[in-house]
Amino acid sequence: MGTDVIVVNGGSSSGKSGIVRCLKAILPQPWINLGVDDLVDRLPPALLESGAGISFGQAGEVVLGDDWRAIETAWTTGVAAMARAGARIIIDDVFLGGRTSQERLRGHLRGLEVLWVGVHCAPEAAAAREFARGDRPPGMAAGQAEKVHQGVVYDVEVDTTHAESLDCARVIAQHVS
Amino acid sequence: MGTDVIVVNGGSSSGKSGIVRCLKAILPQPWINLGVDDLVDRLPPALLESGAGISFGQAGEVVLGDDWRAIETAWTTGVAAMARAGARIIIDDVFLGGRTSQERLRGHLRGLEVLWVGVHCAPEAAAAREFARGDRPPGMAAGQAEKVHQGVVYDVEVDTTHAESLDCARVIAQHVS
Amino acid sequence: MGTDVIVVNGGSSSGKSGIVRCLKAILPQPWINLGVDDLVDRLPPALLESGAGISFGQAGEVVLGDDWRAIETAWTTGVAAMARAGARIIIDDVFLGGRTSQERLRGHLRGLEVLWVGVHCAPEAAAAREFARGDRPPGMAAGQAEKVHQGVVYDVEVDTTHAESLDCARVIAQHVS
Amino acid sequence: MGTDVIVVNGGSSSGKSGIVRCLKAILPQPWINLGVDDLVDRLPPALLESGAGISFGQAGEVVLGDDWRAIETAWTTGVAAMARAGARIIIDDVFLGGRTSQERLRGHLRGLEVLWVGVHCAPEAAAAREFARGDRPPGMAAGQAEKVHQGVVYDVEVDTTHAESLDCARVIAQHVS
Repeated sequence: MGTDVIVVNGGSSSGKSGIVRCLKAILPQPWINLGVDDLVDRLPPALLESGAGISFGQAGEVVLGDDWRAIETAWTTGVAAMARAGARIIIDDVFLGGRTSQERLRGHLRGLEVLWVGVHCAPEAAAAREFARGDRPPGMAAGQAEKVHQGVVYDVEVDTTHAESLDCARVIAQHVS
Repeated sequence: MGTDVIVVNGGSSSGKSGIVRCLKAILPQPWINLGVDDLVDRLPPALLESGAGISFGQAGEVVLGDDWRAIETAWTTGVAAMARAGARIIIDDVFLGGRTSQERLRGHLRGLEVLWVGVHCAPEAAAAREFARGDRPPGMAAGQAEKVHQGVVYDVEVDTTHAESLDCARVIAQHVS
Repeated sequence: MGTDVIVVNGGSSSGKSGIVRCLKAILPQPWINLGVDDLVDRLPPALLESGAGISFGQAGEVVLGDDWRAIETAWTTGVAAMARAGARIIIDDVFLGGRTSQERLRGHLRGLEVLWVGVHCAPEAAAAREFARGDRPPGMAAGQAEKVHQGVVYDVEVDTTHAESLDCARVIAQHVS
Repeated sequence: MGTDVIVVNGGSSSGKSGIVRCLKAILPQPWINLGVDDLVDRLPPALLESGAGISFGQAGEVVLGDDWRAIETAWTTGVAAMARAGARIIIDDVFLGGRTSQERLRGHLRGLEVLWVGVHCAPEAAAAREFARGDRPPGMAAGQAEKVHQGVVYDVEVDTTHAESLDCARVIAQHVS
């Protein structure tokens, strides 16, 4: 039985996107990606401006409003349904709640063969990359770098501090069946 | 009972994206959008280059490969599941098969309250907008302008040839409950 | 003697960019474009955040800081030098000072054969397009729609309220020699 | 006397853009950036499609057409004029001709205080980054990695193979007066 879903968890600016692009290019089967950023990009302006959806604090911390959880739950339910219907999906996520976030996602993905991937990056390196991008709230990268991995259990872990995305993707690909 | 899903169907460069952005900004409830272009953007390189997924002919016509239908079916199954789980979703689509495409989507959305919206645009106007964008295969807009509406039944229809996206969105919004 | 520079002046969301893309595609000679937005995109973060460069008021009005004029003068001097060195350049600009802005630019372009183009758009239409884009400060389009044309003298004027970019570009192209 | 121009030379995917963004953010004076990619982005479609401007070979090599040199010369003349008029400019370039390219640019910048910066990256690392981006012709990064530095003389050199853009920018900034 093959892998149905690859969950790639890591902090902001840890290098998830580059790894995901590489994975899609090197894996022999067709994989598509749908992550938490895709949902954020699709939120209506009211949810971004009011604090009811998602917003960002002074130190780059993410603040989730009342409406967020409802829409995220529906979104994730749908992503799981895509996978059950046969689409191979790479979910890139940021487990703000660490182990609690993983348990919630595990619940959604019940019955599916999931590969859990942790993307580590030294806080200083992630902060430097955040600075170089210039399009993320300052502080977010350092704040999330270690928090998102607390209590999370992985099948494979990579560290982008000194490794290229492609090399990390190759390590991950060996665990995809 | 309120509207669960808004399906916005129209040819390439007919103005769907602008209408969808306006709808998300003016509707009082939070709506997210997920369309066929979002799936295309997520396909792995192999499906785009090999002809197995989606490709484009000399006159801008869309060519769907063997792998496309399978992944699109899984994707649409998931989008419907999101809606059943409570997310309000605007699906922007291009019914290449006209009525047949609508029937297939209707099957996926069974049990949901759907508002079917047709976005018309005169072929010459759509072709001019395609030219001005400069990022679409030439010929696609004119080729799809009328074909995608053949045999399709709508709840509301708008025409962007001489109207702004915002005005079209206001007309559509009156039909959302 | 041929046209050296095409200056395209119009308010925000009046449709300048689409017209410029069309012009580059239909004119028989190679033209490149360099406009005020290109300079804004290249400003360092400090000039955007401090008010020393360019910033935006509550009603979408543009506020120019002390450092802006110096850097804009140097920029325009360079663009004029490119044209004198033989590059055909389309300058898309927003004459916030109307006639005064034109006189200043005319000074920079002395000795060059310039085609002055006015891009009009009804304030309500420009505001609707601004809303549909969703990426501009609200109010900017309506506030600039008429102001930027005050006292300005043109060789050719187009109105995008009811015309496609391509049709406007064709009218302009007839005046390029 | 202060630095007027910073020239950042390196192969495709060597990390120039990240370094330039960091430089603009950390240097105390306002700097703007204008590089060869900005000119390529502004070329009309005819020059990109015909081979008369710039095109790419099977192995990612850059092919420069007859019209390219003329327009690039005019462009560079203008960029130098901007700097002479007082704008501090970071030019990011790819010296396809190595030393010959540097000599040509040096001619344009005569009389200006120039800081010459070399951005090195191991060919395998640059190729891996090119793969992860997925938006560049394959082979370009490896093909340019060493070639662009042949015979070029620098004031400061950095290597992005194992260093973050921000750290490289800090080294460069110490040489800016």
